[in-house]
Amino acid sequence: MSKLLIVGTVAFDAIETPFGKTDKILGGAGTFIGLAASQFRIDAAIVSVVGEDFPSQYFELLKTHGINTDGIEIVPGGKTFFWKGKYMNDLNVRETLDTQLNVLADFQPVVPEGFKNSEVLMLGNLHPSVQMSVIDQMETKPKMTVLDTMNFWMNHTPKELEEVIAKVDVITINDEEARQLSGEYSLVTAAEKIHEMGPKYVVIKKGEHGALLFNGENVFFAPALPLRDVFDPTGAGDTFAGGFAGYLALTEDYSFENMKNAVIYGSNLASFCVEKFGTERMQGLDKKEVFERLEQFRNLTQFDINLA
Amino acid sequence: MSKLLIVGTVAFDAIETPFGKTDKILGGAGTFIGLAASQFRIDAAIVSVVGEDFPSQYFELLKTHGINTDGIEIVPGGKTFFWKGKYMNDLNVRETLDTQLNVLADFQPVVPEGFKNSEVLMLGNLHPSVQMSVIDQMETKPKMTVLDTMNFWMNHTPKELEEVIAKVDVITINDEEARQLSGEYSLVTAAEKIHEMGPKYVVIKKGEHGALLFNGENVFFAPALPLRDVFDPTGAGDTFAGGFAGYLALTEDYSFENMKNAVIYGSNLASFCVEKFGTERMQGLDKKEVFERLEQFRNLTQFDINLA
Repeated sequence: MSKLLIVGTVAFDAIETPFGKTDKILGGAGTFIGLAASQFRIDAAIVSVVGEDFPSQYFELLKTHGINTDGIEIVPGGKTFFWKGKYMNDLNVRETLDTQLNVLADFQPVVPEGFKNSEVLMLGNLHPSVQMSVIDQMETKPKMTVLDTMNFWMNHTPKELEEVIAKVDVITINDEEARQLSGEYSLVTAAEKIHEMGPKYVVIKKGEHGALLFNGENVFFAPALPLRDVFDPTGAGDTFAGGFAGYLALTEDYSFENMKNAVIYGSNLASFCVEKFGTERMQGLDKKEVFERLEQFRNLTQFDINLA
Repeated sequence: MSKLLIVGTVAFDAIETPFGKTDKILGGAGTFIGLAASQFRIDAAIVSVVGEDFPSQYFELLKTHGINTDGIEIVPGGKTFFWKGKYMNDLNVRETLDTQLNVLADFQPVVPEGFKNSEVLMLGNLHPSVQMSVIDQMETKPKMTVLDTMNFWMNHTPKELEEVIAKVDVITINDEEARQLSGEYSLVTAAEKIHEMGPKYVVIKKGEHGALLFNGENVFFAPALPLRDVFDPTGAGDTFAGGFAGYLALTEDYSFENMKNAVIYGSNLASFCVEKFGTERMQGLDKKEVFERLEQFRNLTQFDINLA
């Protein structure tokens, strides 16, 4: 089986949306990526760090989903990374109420031996130095390295981020971040500039407005599925990335045509993620539901026009 | 040939964008709809009103595009409707600097005899009473009546607008307007509520984020083509509507499957409209360019996924 190595936070989230609020629940980019990737018959492993306060049932949950957790370090006496946030009425704007880095502050990732030759490497949103350390530990160059990052690192560690960007095949960022990173307003021009920084593929996530995949002159667009109810956007971007990377690992086909499918698969899984708080909807998500929704994506986008 | 009757403003626009500004140039919803519809081998006519100040070369321009102008009244001594607006940096926000209704204030539309049996009726954004008057003048019920409107009429003439909405097959509005009209945030729920007001088909325009077509349980999404340069968004929505209505008139196929194509065609033509100021790009737009761009829309959206 093909291997997918994931580095990303495994954390506690406390979330408030117009529809309700949670206490500390399971969260973190690594968690969401892992649960999304668990939809595929691949070997997925997470590299991360948690504190002693991290409940063993969360480890069980990940393992039950077939995710290798050998690379998740437990720091004795340490406390797990915690994020508390609040979404405004339209769910497009969120405010961070509290961030406690805790054990994440000194995180030194260690890639398990068996995953140093992974076909696909998914670098979840984290300090670029941590991402670089994982890249450096790989014994064979992955067929595809996917980087997810955000404006925080553009503002605070631009140099380190630049070095990671230069080493990856795919970067996934949102539209505002693409504009910030490139200094270009047009997403077409922004993608061109980002190509020049290294990544052959640029994925621009636009939340409820879908995602764009750029590769030179090639462009593909996957809409977000129009949903009756969006409950909690937390983890949607990570779930998208996990679906994208997981599908590539499964198919081992890195052509642009197949990347289109990976983007659709990522959008598909993300459409489930937002339907409940945190990871709730992604736990035990049924393959049948996913296939049905894929059919909805087909109906939503496929047309057969005659030139007129 | 199939007939398309258009009612909409024929006007002067003065436009300012971050990329430049214009003096009074040809504008108006009816004009943009007409130019878009001129892409098809159909009989299209515009019902509108202008003042004596409206240059004869603009009439010639419309006629050269095969548009019947018998229904455009010239008010002796009158002045043509004038709109002046300014777009902010990201082109998504616009400010109206001046509106002079002029001859539009007392507009009594008169449908030319030969178009009272049009297959498709396109009601461009105008006072709902004017739109209703055109509906009432039709001798045979059009196969498809398409309504474009905006928040201004929702705020100022809600009763009259409601009556028009109850009589049409398709309504095209933007996302914010759909939310306002329905009182629902989710566009899925908003479309359901608007269905209940009358229209079997609800088209929600999201500008650079594409357009959604709803019909009961059926949903289709057409992206906007990602463009390197967007110069002036004026008329893009009208051009979309003109392409949509024109394609339906040409094909005379009002199935949901063909409506998908109409939405794609509308998006295609709108992608040209924004490339230059006002109607400039739409004048003499080449069929070959349109077909090439249709191919781009295919590449942008079509995928062939295998269940995994």
